[in-house]
Order: sequence, then structure tokens, then C-alpha cells
Amino acid sequence: MGKKAKSENWKDRLHEIIYEADTPAGKWFDLVLIALILFSVVLVMLESVDTIDARYHRTLLALEWVVTVLFTLEYIARIISIRKPAHYIFSFYGIIDLLSTIPLYLSYVVAGSQVLLALRALRLLRIFRILKLVQFLGEASMLREALRASRTKIAVFIYTVLILSILMGTLMYLIESDEAGFTSIPRSIYWTIVTLTTVGYGDIAPQTTLGQLIATVVMIMGYGIIAVPTGIVTVEFSKQEKNKGSRPEGYPPVHTNTQACPHCGVGGHRDDASFCYQCGAKL
Amino acid sequence: MGKKAKSENWKDRLHEIIYEADTPAGKWFDLVLIALILFSVVLVMLESVDTIDARYHRTLLALEWVVTVLFTLEYIARIISIRKPAHYIFSFYGIIDLLSTIPLYLSYVVAGSQVLLALRALRLLRIFRILKLVQFLGEASMLREALRASRTKIAVFIYTVLILSILMGTLMYLIESDEAGFTSIPRSIYWTIVTLTTVGYGDIAPQTTLGQLIATVVMIMGYGIIAVPTGIVTVEFSKQEKNKGSRPEGYPPVHTNTQACPHCGVGGHRDDASFCYQCGAKL
Amino acid sequence: MGKKAKSENWKDRLHEIIYEADTPAGKWFDLVLIALILFSVVLVMLESVDTIDARYHRTLLALEWVVTVLFTLEYIARIISIRKPAHYIFSFYGIIDLLSTIPLYLSYVVAGSQVLLALRALRLLRIFRILKLVQFLGEASMLREALRASRTKIAVFIYTVLILSILMGTLMYLIESDEAGFTSIPRSIYWTIVTLTTVGYGDIAPQTTLGQLIATVVMIMGYGIIAVPTGIVTVEFSKQEKNKGSRPEGYPPVHTNTQACPHCGVGGHRDDASFCYQCGAKL
Amino acid sequence: MGKKAKSENWKDRLHEIIYEADTPAGKWFDLVLIALILFSVVLVMLESVDTIDARYHRTLLALEWVVTVLFTLEYIARIISIRKPAHYIFSFYGIIDLLSTIPLYLSYVVAGSQVLLALRALRLLRIFRILKLVQFLGEASMLREALRASRTKIAVFIYTVLILSILMGTLMYLIESDEAGFTSIPRSIYWTIVTLTTVGYGDIAPQTTLGQLIATVVMIMGYGIIAVPTGIVTVEFSKQEKNKGSRPEGYPPVHTNTQACPHCGVGGHRDDASFCYQCGAKL
Repeated sequence: MGKKAKSENWKDRLHEIIYEADTPAGKWFDLVLIALILFSVVLVMLESVDTIDARYHRTLLALEWVVTVLFTLEYIARIISIRKPAHYIFSFYGIIDLLSTIPLYLSYVVAGSQVLLALRALRLLRIFRILKLVQFLGEASMLREALRASRTKIAVFIYTVLILSILMGTLMYLIESDEAGFTSIPRSIYWTIVTLTTVGYGDIAPQTTLGQLIATVVMIMGYGIIAVPTGIVTVEFSKQEKNKGSRPEGYPPVHTNTQACPHCGVGGHRDDASFCYQCGAKL
Repeated sequence: MGKKAKSENWKDRLHEIIYEADTPAGKWFDLVLIALILFSVVLVMLESVDTIDARYHRTLLALEWVVTVLFTLEYIARIISIRKPAHYIFSFYGIIDLLSTIPLYLSYVVAGSQVLLALRALRLLRIFRILKLVQFLGEASMLREALRASRTKIAVFIYTVLILSILMGTLMYLIESDEAGFTSIPRSIYWTIVTLTTVGYGDIAPQTTLGQLIATVVMIMGYGIIAVPTGIVTVEFSKQEKNKGSRPEGYPPVHTNTQACPHCGVGGHRDDASFCYQCGAKL
Repeated sequence: MGKKAKSENWKDRLHEIIYEADTPAGKWFDLVLIALILFSVVLVMLESVDTIDARYHRTLLALEWVVTVLFTLEYIARIISIRKPAHYIFSFYGIIDLLSTIPLYLSYVVAGSQVLLALRALRLLRIFRILKLVQFLGEASMLREALRASRTKIAVFIYTVLILSILMGTLMYLIESDEAGFTSIPRSIYWTIVTLTTVGYGDIAPQTTLGQLIATVVMIMGYGIIAVPTGIVTVEFSKQEKNKGSRPEGYPPVHTNTQACPHCGVGGHRDDASFCYQCGAKL
Repeated sequence: MGKKAKSENWKDRLHEIIYEADTPAGKWFDLVLIALILFSVVLVMLESVDTIDARYHRTLLALEWVVTVLFTLEYIARIISIRKPAHYIFSFYGIIDLLSTIPLYLSYVVAGSQVLLALRALRLLRIFRILKLVQFLGEASMLREALRASRTKIAVFIYTVLILSILMGTLMYLIESDEAGFTSIPRSIYWTIVTLTTVGYGDIAPQTTLGQLIATVVMIMGYGIIAVPTGIVTVEFSKQEKNKGSRPEGYPPVHTNTQACPHCGVGGHRDDASFCYQCGAKL
């Protein structure tokens, strides 16, 4: 009679462990998986440091094999425990999971370490899985909502910044000499964006008095323009805050859990849901 | 009986295509024109990159001729399809269009590639035409409105920043030596603005302890002062937002379209307008 | 019967011209004075540029004499046209005016051009006089009011930033080597403030992995902390905005003019004032 | 009959002087202590400057002895004047006070000046004691409250920034060569954070066109993302401001003083408190 008290067979139990985080076993699986993903990301990072790679190459390779074998087992388990494997295999996470698993196998087939490293770097995208567990999803979705609501305003803003950068960049190219680093219009535009966003590397810097005068204008513009996205987002946040207050039954209005449909794999079901909202299968 | 169902002659049809974006043909013309403008801008940029210009000079020149011929045809078409050509020729866009068209012709008359490049760079201003099509003009005008409403406050702010920069720059010139880069007062003021706006190139940096102490003060001032434009714009946006909410018939209150009067060339007519609001000609 | 139609003597008329900006003559005097102050500031700047000074030294010196003579005449006129000269002489502007006038005379008495330049730079402070004419004083006073209201909050903020900088700076000194530029604790604190305020010169930059990790923490802190003054000022501005709206008779509530009392020299009188609000003298 | 008019013995009087700031003697003690802490911090800083240490080593050492002896006396006085010394000794400030006192003694036992300097730097943490006196604690607690209320939002924000930095950093490592400074993935991530937070040292800067294009994207992202913490904090501040207004008896609602319980050492008692709110001892 309990929600999932009596699993019909081991496949269902496996599905519950792998795809959901409501049971103790499911939570443990997720925590171990997150640790493994972070560990694999750290491995990729360490291998990119020449001094570390030179000294511990064998150890790193061995650990890479451990990660690869575990990812392989997880991938197989994910496929056999879902009723419609194709749904998972061709989903965003399915493809990422596959690409995270195969680089080491590929290295025995294909040459070119750079390409394989790029592939292994895709493992980073698995980090997004971690978000699933994050307790503060409510807050995140509120931020996301505010950003979505102001996306046209932000687009107008970025568009203006780009036009401004092209105009000022071209102007600077005409004024400044090659020695100062303004060797081409694209490079001058790059400098303008570096200055307008107040990053200011200093690898390119105006040398002439006129150039420095215009640079000054660009800086003050950049210093003032930053107020625009800030204003947009603040107003949007404050609207969200008000809406939250005026909604009668608290926020978030409907609590969703981490269950995934065993049939079609879709997530985000309501706590009190008995059937999948997409395919109608029993949860 | 339809709004524009029966055009009297080919001139009117041309006018509709070139100056308006309400008909399929007009939309296509605008899209092609935008593509051409962007292409001509990219041409100018590529030609400024020495390595590219050295290898593909002939190709770039040929493409430049294509752009010039198309711009020439467009310019002529714009003149013959409007009833009062002088209105167009001496308008802001009319002058920009002319200046965008002639550089290549001029290069056979006048020497001095730098001047011609500068002229060709004016083509960038044609980018503003693209704005005509942009769907989110409502949002843009709201941002513009907020900035206009707070322009005196922003002027006071910029004025204060400039006075502050002159004072601190002179102070730094008196304290720091020439070796650190503070060779003159204008250059020291330039440094102050670079620091105050948190750009921080690092081409000029204080070396003495006292200079670094004052630099620290400038930085913290700059870090705090940025709050002022941000506060101004945020408050203004939030007012705009409220006004929007309190207006009875939604926003924007009156929908305007991209039609231009065939007589005087003015734009921004209401969707339901039958006569030009400026000269009274039938639309 | 007019407010100032019948001036008793030339001293009163001179006072009206010099200290007030309500009559056409007074306005012209102020405009000429502002032009002269700006011109004298530009002179100081140009003289500091070595290449310009080398070529035009004689011209600059001649112009400097013109400015000095005019400032001397103005200073004398200010003294004789006010009833209580001591009030003016020992006021802030009185001292600045004197210091702006004497450097050239002093250069024939005292040696040491650096000291004299410093004295001439004080002339910059005369710029503040220009503010008197500025039309948007209402806006400026509103900004000033908002900043004053939030000054304790801003003080707490700056205090926190300083403590944080001392702590992180000392930490970086212990971690980073001298080669990276962290040669002493004050210098490391300087680096921390450069980083925390997102200025980032790059003259000092961490080299070790641990140092870069801590630098990362400082940057993200700085990136987030900037929200605090912004939040403070925005909230304060929005309060000011609301107060403005709720005041029954518009803003600013009382219009003041640029008249100055001929007796005690105090300014900021109401438009409809007949007597000085400080000393009771007839205006 | 006065609140503390008749102290039973010298221990109580000492406790009042050291742990409280309500009596003139207590205020003086605090001011002297703050001066001493600041002086000791300045000593540590000066000793870290090589040129100063080389010239004034003996003077600095002597002053260091003075500070150490005074800190030792204070530490002993704090222990004997409190009824439960263990409460103080094992409190946060108790440990900091001990660690601030012992480095010079340790230098005769242990070698390794770097470790001792690190220990002496802990003295900086005593600065927080100064906060006790600060008059604007009400404002500080309001700021702290606002930051605490928005901590989950800020955590989501920092989390997103870190994920973004890892992704973009890895991408830049794959694109840019070692010569530009992108020698490893951790270093590339460091560069990404330097750019995203608009610090922009310039020690590492992209050289390829593609790298500069991605750098541009990172910069504009960083320029826009800064709006998020700003928006969060502003909304939170404005909520705090409203709450303050709606509280019936003003803010802060209850005035606390700097008294500390002589029995258990807890602070923050109400002005009208007669007994310690924690242990019930008479104040």
C-alpha cells in the first residue's frame, strides 16, 4: 500500500535507485555519483597540468580507468532499468553520459590526445546532474524566472553594447597606431569590449592623447552602462518578490520531487502524483 | 478598397518595398539590405586585418565593388520612389547612405586610404536601420525613456566624476615620479579615470607608498561611486514599471507600424492611420 | 520700486555683478570667470606636458601672467565691493582665490617649481564655483541628500572592506613569494584592494596555485560585495523619490537664487527674500 | 543605589573596566586597547617591509616587546577578573588573545620566522574587538540581516559562476596555446574568473581570434551577471527598510549596551537589564 513499498522486480528497484532520490538507497547512489563526477573532473584538470602529468601519469591513467569502468557500469544500468531505453539514450543526459564514458576506449582506436581531452571535458556537463539534489532549487528557479522575464530587455542592452563597441572600436583603429596594439578593426573592437566592461587587461592600451581621451569616454560609458542590466534585474527581482507575497498558498506553489517516470523518464512530478503527467504510466 | 491593395504605379510599389516593412516584398527587401550592410561592415573589418588583406586583397576588392554597386542602385531607387527626394537626400539616413556608397568611387579621385577607410567605416551607422525591424522596440523605448528621465542626474554624476578625476589626477602627478608613468597632468587624469572606473590597465601604476595609498582611496571611491548611476537607473526603471502597470489599456498604448509617408517620408504611423500625421498625405 | 532697480553706489553695483547671477551683468561676469578658471586649469595641465612646455614655454608664461593679473583684479574687486571684507577673505573661497592668484608672484621670491605647481593646482578648487550656475542643483542636492542619509551604512561597508583587505593581504603575503610582487604586507594589502575593487592592474599577480585560489576567492567576494553599496544607495534613492512624490507643493519646495548678502556674503536666499536670513541686512 | 555605584571588590571593578564600556574607565580601557591593537598590527606590517626592517630592526623588536608585555598583562587581567575563567579562555576571543600574545615568547623556543609571523598576523583578528565600540552597530546588523536573508540566492549565484568558469576555462584551454598563458585547465579557470569578475590582470590574455571572441563573451557575461547579486541585495535591503518602517516602536527595538556578565561573560544585555539573560547572575 506504501507508495513504492513493493517493487515488482529488481529492474524496478534499480530504476528507483538510479533515477530517483526519494529512498535512502537512491540518495546514496546520487551522492556517490556526484563524488565520482567531481573526481573525474578533477582528474581531467590535474592531467592538464604538465608538472603533475609528468610525475603521476601512471596513477592518473589508472584512476581514469577506474572512473571509466564505473561510468560504463552506470550507463549500462541506466539502460537496462528503464522501460524505454531509447528515451534515455537519445536524451541530453544520455548523450552526455555516453560521451563521458567512451574517451578512454577511443584513445586505443583514434590518435590525437587533444580531441580526446575535449571529449573528456564534456564530462563537466554531467555537473548539471548535481543540481538535481540541490536543496535550494526554489530560489534558483526564482532567479531563472526573473532573468527570463527580462530577457528582451537584456537582449536590447547587449545589442546596444555590441553596436557601440563596433563604432568605438573602428574609431580607435583609425586614431591609434599599430604599435599600441590596434592592428585591425576586430582587435580594436576586442579592446573596446575589454574597456567597456571594465575588465581592462592592459595588453592593448591607447598611446596617443586623442586615443586616451576616447578611451576615457568609453570607460565612463562602461561605468555608467553597467547600471542598465543592474536596474533591469533589480526591478524584475522586486516584481518576483511581490508576486511571491501575493500568492495565497506559499511558494513554490506545488512541491515536486526527484522521481522520474519508469516508463518515459520524465521528471519533476508533484509530490502527490500517482501517474506520470506525460505518458500516464503509474509512478 | 484594401489599405494598399491597388498601387497606382511602379513608383508607389517601389516606395512600399523600400520604405515599408508591412508587405512580404518589403520585409524581404529589408532582410536583404540588413544582410548587405552587415556584409559590408564585415568587409571593412576583414580588410583592416593585414594578414587577410595581403592574401585576399583582390577578392575583397571585388566584393567591395559588388557592395558599392548594390548600394548605388538602392540609393537611386530610394530617390526616384519618393515624391520629395530632397527630404530623403538631406535626412540623416540619406547622408549616411550617400557616404556609405561613394568611398570606392572616391578612391579613384582622391589618394589617402586612411581617409577613405574612415568614410567606409561610416557604413557602420547604417546598422541603425536594422533597428527598424527589431521586434522588441517597445522594450527599447522603455529603456530609452528611463535613461532620458534620469539624464540630469546622470549629468551631475559624470560632472562629479570628472572634477574628482582632475583633482585626484593632479594630486597623483605631484606625488608620483615620471618613471611610474605619471609624466603629465593629463596623463595622470587618464590614470585616475582608468582606476576610478575599475578598468585598471596597469600601463601606469603608482610606485611610491603614498601614491599607492591614494590609489587605494581612488579605487574604493570608484567601487562605491558606481552605486550612484545604478541607483538612479534602478529607481527610474521601477517608476517606468509602475507607470506601465497603471496605464488602463496596456503597453505600448498605440501600436505603430513601419510604414513611411510616400510624400514626406516620416515614419512611426499608427496601425489604423489613413493619413500622414505630419503632412496629411494619404498613406 | 524694482527689487534692485536703484543701487546706491558703484560698490553695490559691483557687488551685484560679482556675487550674484540674477542680473545680465552678473551672469556675464560668472560666465567669463568660469571660462577664465577653466582656461587657467588647462594652462596648468599643458605646462605639465614636457613636449608642450619645451616648445611653447614663453607663450604659456605670458598667458599665465594674463590669468594672474585678471585673478588679482577680481580678488581686489571682491574685497572692496563687500561690506565686511574679512568675511570673504577668511572664507573657504576667499583663501582658495588668494592661493590661486599668488603662485606667479611667489615664483620670483621662492625657488622650487614643484611647490609652486602644487599651489597653482589649487586653482582647480575654484571649479566648484562653477557649480553655482549649474541649473540642475535640485537634482544634485537630491543625490547628496541620499548619500548623506546612507553615510553610516557606507561607513560600515568601507570599514568591512578595509578589515577584509588587511586580513586577505596578510594571508597572501604569507603564501606568495617576493618574486610575484608581494614584497611586504602593505603592498599585499594594496594588491588585495586592487583585486577586491575589480581594478586589477596586473603589476602584482599571484604565481602559486594556492595564491591564485585565494585570489579567486577575493575576486568573487569583490564581485559580490559591490552589491552592498549599490543596494544601499538604490534603496535610499527610492525613498527620496517617494518623499518627493508625497510632498504637497512640488520639489524643490522653496526656490533659492544665486544672490549673496552684500553684508555677510551668505548665499542661498529664497526668491522672495527681502532680508538676509543670517544677518538680517536688506538684500 | 546607583547601578554599579558600589563594587564589592577590585575584581569586580577590574571586570567592569575590561569587559564593559559603560563607565569612563571602561571606555578609556577600550580606547587604549584599540590603539594598542592597531599599533601592534602596524608593527607587523612595518616589519614585513624589508627596507624598514633592515634599518629599524632593533626599535621594532623593542616595541614588539612592549606590545607583548602589555598584551600579557591584559590577558592575565581578563582571566583573574572573570568568575569562570574557562568561559573566556576557550571562547573565540580568548584563543585569539592568547595567540596574539605568545609569538615573541615562542620565537625563543621554536625556529622559523615565517610561522611566527603567521601567528602574529592572527593579531589582526583582534581588530574585530573594535567593533564592540562602534556606534553604528544597528546599521551593521541590518546589513548583516539582509545578507543572511539572501544567502541561498547568493549561494546559487556563486555556484552558477563557478560552473560557468569551469566550463569556459576548459574551453579556453582547448582553444588557446601555452604561450598565451593557458598552460593548464586550473590556470584557464583562474583566467576565466579574473575576466568574469572584470578584474582583468592581463598576466594571461588570449592571443588567437577565436580565443578573443570567447573572451568577449565571458566579459559581457560577467558585465551582465554582476546585476544578479546587486538585484538580490537591493531587493533584500528594500524589504528590510519596509520592515523597519512597519515596526511600531522604532528601530532598533531594544537598546543593548556593552556590559558583559561578570559570571558567564555573555554580552548584549538590554539597557534596563538587572540580571544576565543567560545565567541569571546579577549584573
